[in-house]
Amino acid sequence: MGGFGRKAYEFLSELGLGPRNPGCFVNGAWRGSGPVIAEVMEASIEDYEEGLRACANAAKIWMQIPAPKRGEIVRQIGEALRTKLYYLGRLVSLEMGKILPEGIGEVQEIIDMCDYAVGLSRQLNGSIIPSERPNHMMLEVWNPLGIVGVITAFNFPCAVLGWNACIALVCGNCVVWKGAPTTPLITIAMTEIVAQVLEKNNLPAAIFTSFCGGAEIGEAIARDTRIPLVSFTGSSKLLLTVLLLYLELSYIKGVESATVVMCIIIVGLLVQQNVHKRFGKCLLELSGNNAIIVMDDADIQLAMRSVLFAAVGTAGQRCTTCRRLLLHESVYQTVVDQLIQVYKQVNIGDPLEKGTLLGPLHTPISKENFVKGIEVIKAQGGKILVGGSVIDSEGNFVQPTIVEIAPSAQVVKEELFGPVLYVMKFQTLNEAIEINNSVPQGLSSSIFTRKPEIIFKWIGAHGSDCGIVNVNIPTNGAEIGGAFGGEKATGGGREAGSDSWKQYMRRST
Amino acid sequence: MGGFGRKAYEFLSELGLGPRNPGCFVNGAWRGSGPVIAEVMEASIEDYEEGLRACANAAKIWMQIPAPKRGEIVRQIGEALRTKLYYLGRLVSLEMGKILPEGIGEVQEIIDMCDYAVGLSRQLNGSIIPSERPNHMMLEVWNPLGIVGVITAFNFPCAVLGWNACIALVCGNCVVWKGAPTTPLITIAMTEIVAQVLEKNNLPAAIFTSFCGGAEIGEAIARDTRIPLVSFTGSSKLLLTVLLLYLELSYIKGVESATVVMCIIIVGLLVQQNVHKRFGKCLLELSGNNAIIVMDDADIQLAMRSVLFAAVGTAGQRCTTCRRLLLHESVYQTVVDQLIQVYKQVNIGDPLEKGTLLGPLHTPISKENFVKGIEVIKAQGGKILVGGSVIDSEGNFVQPTIVEIAPSAQVVKEELFGPVLYVMKFQTLNEAIEINNSVPQGLSSSIFTRKPEIIFKWIGAHGSDCGIVNVNIPTNGAEIGGAFGGEKATGGGREAGSDSWKQYMRRST
Amino acid sequence: MGGFGRKAYEFLSELGLGPRNPGCFVNGAWRGSGPVIAEVMEASIEDYEEGLRACANAAKIWMQIPAPKRGEIVRQIGEALRTKLYYLGRLVSLEMGKILPEGIGEVQEIIDMCDYAVGLSRQLNGSIIPSERPNHMMLEVWNPLGIVGVITAFNFPCAVLGWNACIALVCGNCVVWKGAPTTPLITIAMTEIVAQVLEKNNLPAAIFTSFCGGAEIGEAIARDTRIPLVSFTGSSKLLLTVLLLYLELSYIKGVESATVVMCIIIVGLLVQQNVHKRFGKCLLELSGNNAIIVMDDADIQLAMRSVLFAAVGTAGQRCTTCRRLLLHESVYQTVVDQLIQVYKQVNIGDPLEKGTLLGPLHTPISKENFVKGIEVIKAQGGKILVGGSVIDSEGNFVQPTIVEIAPSAQVVKEELFGPVLYVMKFQTLNEAIEINNSVPQGLSSSIFTRKPEIIFKWIGAHGSDCGIVNVNIPTNGAEIGGAFGGEKATGGGREAGSDSWKQYMRRST
Amino acid sequence: MGGFGRKAYEFLSELGLGPRNPGCFVNGAWRGSGPVIAEVMEASIEDYEEGLRACANAAKIWMQIPAPKRGEIVRQIGEALRTKLYYLGRLVSLEMGKILPEGIGEVQEIIDMCDYAVGLSRQLNGSIIPSERPNHMMLEVWNPLGIVGVITAFNFPCAVLGWNACIALVCGNCVVWKGAPTTPLITIAMTEIVAQVLEKNNLPAAIFTSFCGGAEIGEAIARDTRIPLVSFTGSSKLLLTVLLLYLELSYIKGVESATVVMCIIIVGLLVQQNVHKRFGKCLLELSGNNAIIVMDDADIQLAMRSVLFAAVGTAGQRCTTCRRLLLHESVYQTVVDQLIQVYKQVNIGDPLEKGTLLGPLHTPISKENFVKGIEVIKAQGGKILVGGSVIDSEGNFVQPTIVEIAPSAQVVKEELFGPVLYVMKFQTLNEAIEINNSVPQGLSSSIFTRKPEIIFKWIGAHGSDCGIVNVNIPTNGAEIGGAFGGEKATGGGREAGSDSWKQYMRRST
Repeated sequence: MGGFGRKAYEFLSELGLGPRNPGCFVNGAWRGSGPVIAEVMEASIEDYEEGLRACANAAKIWMQIPAPKRGEIVRQIGEALRTKLYYLGRLVSLEMGKILPEGIGEVQEIIDMCDYAVGLSRQLNGSIIPSERPNHMMLEVWNPLGIVGVITAFNFPCAVLGWNACIALVCGNCVVWKGAPTTPLITIAMTEIVAQVLEKNNLPAAIFTSFCGGAEIGEAIARDTRIPLVSFTGSSKLLLTVLLLYLELSYIKGVESATVVMCIIIVGLLVQQNVHKRFGKCLLELSGNNAIIVMDDADIQLAMRSVLFAAVGTAGQRCTTCRRLLLHESVYQTVVDQLIQVYKQVNIGDPLEKGTLLGPLHTPISKENFVKGIEVIKAQGGKILVGGSVIDSEGNFVQPTIVEIAPSAQVVKEELFGPVLYVMKFQTLNEAIEINNSVPQGLSSSIFTRKPEIIFKWIGAHGSDCGIVNVNIPTNGAEIGGAFGGEKATGGGREAGSDSWKQYMRRST
Repeated sequence: MGGFGRKAYEFLSELGLGPRNPGCFVNGAWRGSGPVIAEVMEASIEDYEEGLRACANAAKIWMQIPAPKRGEIVRQIGEALRTKLYYLGRLVSLEMGKILPEGIGEVQEIIDMCDYAVGLSRQLNGSIIPSERPNHMMLEVWNPLGIVGVITAFNFPCAVLGWNACIALVCGNCVVWKGAPTTPLITIAMTEIVAQVLEKNNLPAAIFTSFCGGAEIGEAIARDTRIPLVSFTGSSKLLLTVLLLYLELSYIKGVESATVVMCIIIVGLLVQQNVHKRFGKCLLELSGNNAIIVMDDADIQLAMRSVLFAAVGTAGQRCTTCRRLLLHESVYQTVVDQLIQVYKQVNIGDPLEKGTLLGPLHTPISKENFVKGIEVIKAQGGKILVGGSVIDSEGNFVQPTIVEIAPSAQVVKEELFGPVLYVMKFQTLNEAIEINNSVPQGLSSSIFTRKPEIIFKWIGAHGSDCGIVNVNIPTNGAEIGGAFGGEKATGGGREAGSDSWKQYMRRST
Repeated sequence: MGGFGRKAYEFLSELGLGPRNPGCFVNGAWRGSGPVIAEVMEASIEDYEEGLRACANAAKIWMQIPAPKRGEIVRQIGEALRTKLYYLGRLVSLEMGKILPEGIGEVQEIIDMCDYAVGLSRQLNGSIIPSERPNHMMLEVWNPLGIVGVITAFNFPCAVLGWNACIALVCGNCVVWKGAPTTPLITIAMTEIVAQVLEKNNLPAAIFTSFCGGAEIGEAIARDTRIPLVSFTGSSKLLLTVLLLYLELSYIKGVESATVVMCIIIVGLLVQQNVHKRFGKCLLELSGNNAIIVMDDADIQLAMRSVLFAAVGTAGQRCTTCRRLLLHESVYQTVVDQLIQVYKQVNIGDPLEKGTLLGPLHTPISKENFVKGIEVIKAQGGKILVGGSVIDSEGNFVQPTIVEIAPSAQVVKEELFGPVLYVMKFQTLNEAIEINNSVPQGLSSSIFTRKPEIIFKWIGAHGSDCGIVNVNIPTNGAEIGGAFGGEKATGGGREAGSDSWKQYMRRST
Repeated sequence: MGGFGRKAYEFLSELGLGPRNPGCFVNGAWRGSGPVIAEVMEASIEDYEEGLRACANAAKIWMQIPAPKRGEIVRQIGEALRTKLYYLGRLVSLEMGKILPEGIGEVQEIIDMCDYAVGLSRQLNGSIIPSERPNHMMLEVWNPLGIVGVITAFNFPCAVLGWNACIALVCGNCVVWKGAPTTPLITIAMTEIVAQVLEKNNLPAAIFTSFCGGAEIGEAIARDTRIPLVSFTGSSKLLLTVLLLYLELSYIKGVESATVVMCIIIVGLLVQQNVHKRFGKCLLELSGNNAIIVMDDADIQLAMRSVLFAAVGTAGQRCTTCRRLLLHESVYQTVVDQLIQVYKQVNIGDPLEKGTLLGPLHTPISKENFVKGIEVIKAQGGKILVGGSVIDSEGNFVQPTIVEIAPSAQVVKEELFGPVLYVMKFQTLNEAIEINNSVPQGLSSSIFTRKPEIIFKWIGAHGSDCGIVNVNIPTNGAEIGGAFGGEKATGGGREAGSDSWKQYMRRST
């Protein structure tokens, strides 16, 4: 809850939330028999099993419903969210800690995604391909997978569900969702809205099954052969470590990247299953380590505004947060000096209050990680230009921080989940691209320049190796019409727009 | 070499093959410093390393060449193959053991693939997507990966290379190929043809780098972080077992499926690499366990011809071989009786000779596996209706075999690489689909029927769970215009047509 | 108004309709200075000119708005229509004469179209095509046309607007609409709804400009060089004849088909314009003359229900109405006998009343045409099996009619806009296809059969030559996801789904 | 023949050409009973009729052949052309008058088009669209049209045939070709090559039917209801005028644009036909009036080279020739001065000779039109900066000419088919775009600039209104991967790449 004490937010009742909330929605009823975290009762493995059984039955019905009719359900979900937009945005802000416009923006993104999916429901087109055999034609048909598992992280506690669930649903799949353990109220409120739409349409509530819970439920989803596709978004190593231990796979030394571990875990789990059963695919959106490059011919003021927005927004806890700022040597000092001034004036405070730019980190642990991170930075030769400290207050507040550091420092390769920006100097475009590509992650990247030849190099074969390659806009702010996702350690999955829907279906030729 | 003794086939000189052949093509020169197998000197790890260094350099040049010009090179490769079609087909037949028309057909498939790829070289289209921001547009650009590794199996010693290499090349990638250890002459002859085309166009020979070799080279490719995509086709557990031991991953008990193991191995290898480096994707085409369903309203004669072609062709060593024949109870006895008659008349002999329908198995080990397989079948209740024995002769000949067995027998779930067909009886369409879907593999499947409602069910959400779903044609015989590949244990990859090319590129949004 | 006297339908005020209504919506205000028809004041040419000037100005603004934002406006239009669904449906039924479920269905179709267009607004994708020149790429960009003119007919007084306007608007075009002269209240009510959405979003009302009016306005749209695309839907020769006379093009003798005439008129008009200005494209959806073929193996009951629905629905005034029923000789007598029984029981009456299947024809002129048509039929050897007379009552009611007639009769080639069905006998599939294709129109066609080989022939190169080719469903009932439109005299245009949107934009390579 | 006297070019026999050549290829035999022009006997209407009858029969066979097999035929045609590349290029140069590299380039373009079409033959994909009805699917199938008529002009005597014929053939259509009356030897040589391929494959020669002839044959094609699609490319008003007179449509006053006239003629012809028969579609590529804009930040040397290539190449007789050069005022004088110098050094002479840049105009009439054009230019205030005269020699040689003139001059709106370049000055980008768009034609256009914001405006909604919109490359030089064609008076058709193939087929939903 972003470090705030619990206040009596009356609007919660608008979202169907009470003082005590059962944490899993199983076959149309709220239950939760696991341990109580805050006011939410987490799901037990028995709850999970019952939920999945109902979900598997619902899948048989849901996949038979014509796609345009499924689109109509998703449209109604969008409408229901639209009605609650303000309340849900407020809840995201309250529970996650991001500022209110960001909270509302996140909910709006699901609404947009619903609208998008409605159109998509009439466009899940297969192909008729000419055959070399006379009087024969080849068909390429797309069929539903059955159930899609969605495991989301605290930083986008509902938008990421939206990306996955909207498309999964119109594609004819049921959804099993496990939200982050630290954002259970959002999980519950979202589920409530979807459940009401399903009920109004006399459809099985188990089409959308959700759980508040931790590693145990996540592991169950990963293991479950009834779930052919698991979409996993996460930046924390916590859950993974737990799973790792559980599986006694810790013999793999030096594991640094969550991606690989998760993949191994999923595959590893499946190995232990009966090989007669269905194999799983996974869609991974993991850590990002995104750079903005500012060339000497860039519009400096535009670049500065973008960097601020990309580095400080959501307190640096977005997967698309700008973590590295690569400045051409000729503009280095000017930009750094000005950025320091801007950083000093950032409005820090209650995310629900108007005018706040920087809210608290998500949890006390996040704050602790920030402190540790700063120590590592210093140890590796980083020089704190501004910020670098926690703020002495009730919430998990930290200062927005700029660090001067060499691109080769090990800490730069990792994702410190907070408002810390590394600045670096470069001389040539080639050098800048090399630095951009030198980290294991490959999610997002931006360049600021006015020259077409630089732009074309940047988006070409020898340019950025990321999945998202921007020009004159920040690293964050993906649009749903394009495919979202990254290369390398980021996982390789693609969500939202373009032909991402094909991942949620199986192809028969 | 299909069990034949070595004869002086003069045509080999037409393909640039001599009595002693160095087994790797590294930076434009033939070399081979490893152990000598037959007349081919296998590649050593030093050869590999030198080859990859040259290939990585060539990649920088190749990806800069405009795609339509790359298409022109592939067109010339197609023309060169066309000139040597007959000789190459003969070599495939000689070295692999399949009958001559199949050998020629395999080479023809690469030629067709070249033609297809030429057109594709002008259609590797990205998208321009409308943005929600004013005066802004989203581009979805496709860039080359760099190097694509291709590891192929003995049963299609050159066609599978063709599927992968043609598309990989027009997409702007260099190719590193390791052919099967038992078909080195084909690897050499194919490489020779490609090398000549590259040379004629003054392009680095290392754009196409190939190795004859075994597990060590395969493992090197799997491990190599310079190769972002590895396409692996294989049905044999041999290589995998070696790798497995090497990695001491044998703690995973009860591993039955090659797929999972390979995937783990690749990922496992990558884990041990520096996480700073590029992560690999893999395209897997592994075992198939394909069924043909014959409904009571089917054209029985058409179905019979298809079954014979699909079950006996290539001595049952195709990944799309029909291994299971599901017959409606009302036609069961008729079909079985007639098939037995047909099987008794199958012409077995020298694959190069006209009229031969069934050549030898690939190696003595294949023959041995056949014998062991028949024993297991009998032990699990299978009843041999026809065949079941090896043929006492010089080559690795075995009888085409029909077995009556329960769908639940464990041996039915596995892929016995030989001309063994399991027949089973069913009562309803649902039952037939259930049996079809009850094996771990999910490559190909066919139904024979005249009713549209059965066809639509079969290709729909509750129908076959395979990647290839045929109607009134055999399980084999994929066309390059469609996507080739399977679900479940088969690996999930797609090669050849449709949008398969996207797997050979990386997307930047 | 379907032949009913004017009653005091209070619900009209819900749609913003008063006792006297100005008939054109020009630059955000209702006006109408032309002659008064019923209670609607038609637009004068001065009104038109003022409207177009405002529309052309609005076009500059509208095309600059990002496509997804335009999609949001269309979404809001859909929501507004949803709120008024029942009232609008009632108005369609009242003014056009179709039964209430059809009236509501028509409005629902626009709503669906809005939802579809919202998704489309993020998918108006151009392409990035690989160039043969180094460091060069080809872009294929889609830009708005500016203004799209839509001229609709009485039989679908609002759905056809919806197909065109939803796509035209998301593509960045303003819309100029002229509704049918006999359905002015629908034109006004629809416009009111769109105008309110535009106003709420502070957008120029002239983005959507509409006129009630006759030939003069239609001609002005056809002539207007500011309108690069005119979508014209019509089955009546009335308007055309007027235009023809006006243009003194009557020298063209023997003109039978509205299509050609309109095309000539549009082109002819443009010729007289200054050649410096933009040339017009036209999207034509004209008459249909649709057949249902019933093979000997068909599900007869299913076919009968479909024929009834397709031939009698909307009193036979749909462009997709089934006008010809081709029966295999072996089922001919059975089907005809049963259909006669069914036709005798059709519930004729007030279209707003529950249970009514057949409402009145649209106008007294329609009724008159029916009478004349029956005479011509008899003169050409047609035998009335059932119906054939007008019903003596206040409204424009006629009997649902079945006629036995030779395929060669001239009257069969024409479209008699009423509930008249021609039945014909055939012996072979080839003969049936030949009859199907023997009329000038090529909109829709259906076959009822259970045999896959017949289906594939029917949809193939030697099958139906229509734009819509159905199997086991009636000729009517197109879905918005597919492209709607016909070949031959039907005009060749395509509306609604698939890539129809490309017609509403211009391509730059 | 470019004004050259007839010499004994021995290479013609390599192309199957003799001293006297029958001018039509009808049902597999050369014939020609019309008047003799040069050494070619033109086709009579009787020849035409016989040819079409055979072609219509061949169409039934050709459309049944699987598309990939049709692709194989087109591949063989490409191979045959490759063998004769040099000879054919020489013939183009000799007969049309363009310089040898351009002649060879034109033939190469057909070869590339063949390669492209081979790939396309496996990608003529229809769609399977989700239906809103349960257990129902919508198919969008593409079927052949039957016969495609191709009427080409003298300036690209074989490339334009290639664009149309390659795609028409793989789409399953027969081709009826009428080449330009002044380039009959090319028509014959091309036909010979195609005919040999068809014969070698035992296919009816009438699949490709060609005629040397004039207006009478053109008119017959336009009228012929057996030809559902006519692709017409032409810049000359000659043929049209003849047709116009024939049809007595001359009442249409002030007709300036060939497009409209042709469209009217085609439609007009069809009107006179029985309306029962099939309606025609037409693909028009007519005149261009293409501008190059040079901004103040442009690479001037690059722009100059491009202008020279685009304005003087093919003696200014390309439809993509640059006819208007719009220069920013700040670079105007520099560019003009330098261009004048360059123009003075242009190498004029025998097109077959190495080093020649400018060959003769096509015919004496072309030369005469040049003279008349220069007079009109002067009368309208144009100032000749360089050139402006014919060259006193045996051939039809004229000087490359630069004219300073106001954009408003009437002569600038027209297409003077020769090496005449109008230069004009502008102050702002908006002004330049306005001038670019102020002519009736809308084929090609280029801008030279280094600023991304200018590029995006140029290719956007308020930019160039042409079908081809280039940046930093000349107006000519389209690639086959993109769609070729223009807007406005240019006709609106699209040939070659992208989804142009859809125009050559009919869609069934």
